Amino acid sequence: MTREDAEACFDRYLARHGAADLEGLLSLFEPDATVEDPVGTPIHRGLEAIRAFYADSQARHGTLAIERVGPVLLGGSELAAHVRAGLHREEGRAPMDVMYTIRFSSAGRIAELRAWY
Amino acid sequence: MTREDAEACFDRYLARHGAADLEGLLSLFEPDATVEDPVGTPIHRGLEAIRAFYADSQARHGTLAIERVGPVLLGGSELAAHVRAGLHREEGRAPMDVMYTIRFSSAGRIAELRAWY
Repeated sequence: MTREDAEACFDRYLARHGAADLEGLLSLFEPDATVEDPVGTPIHRGLEAIRAFYADSQARHGTLAIERVGPVLLGGSELAAHVRAGLHREEGRAPMDVMYTIRFSSAGRIAELRAWY
Repeated sequence: MTREDAEACFDRYLARHGAADLEGLLSLFEPDATVEDPVGTPIHRGLEAIRAFYADSQARHGTLAIERVGPVLLGGSELAAHVRAGLHREEGRAPMDVMYTIRFSSAGRIAELRAWY
């Protein structure tokens, strides 16, 4: 996995998450991926649990405006990145800082995603 | 662990790391802590290995100017934070983006530190 590949995958994640594109988003994950969002809460294991998590998030929040803060950093097969995210439904409110770590599979898909906010 | 406690510990870490205060820095870690810096390289396990790692870093780099970018985020007992770090020896060069995740022990010391840059 090169830094460019990791950045491209992460930018697709942000674009599809922001656009509430559920199927496009899920295609970025391995079938047995895990999502911990936010860190410290129960982990969603496998595509069906991840689908339910993002479908609920999209139903509650709609589309999001997400911007990266600084570069995507890659160590081995693990990325770290800082973004600011705002709800389109609540324009004018200050966006929220979110930090992600993502571990990629050898196929370049998301094997583990963790988010802090 | 409250967000305020995590932030205070992390700010002490940055201040002591920046000042090349080796003993002060080591006092923040659990005896069996691990440090992976940068992520993807071999893990330093236990205080003696961590001491050797930071002593070498300080000998090579001297003191550092480190600034946080945005807030310290806490999930459960795990922190994520984004900083920019520059070498005082190389003033004028653009600082480097670094992202940290830190897992704290129940005593509020650093049990695991990982850094991406």
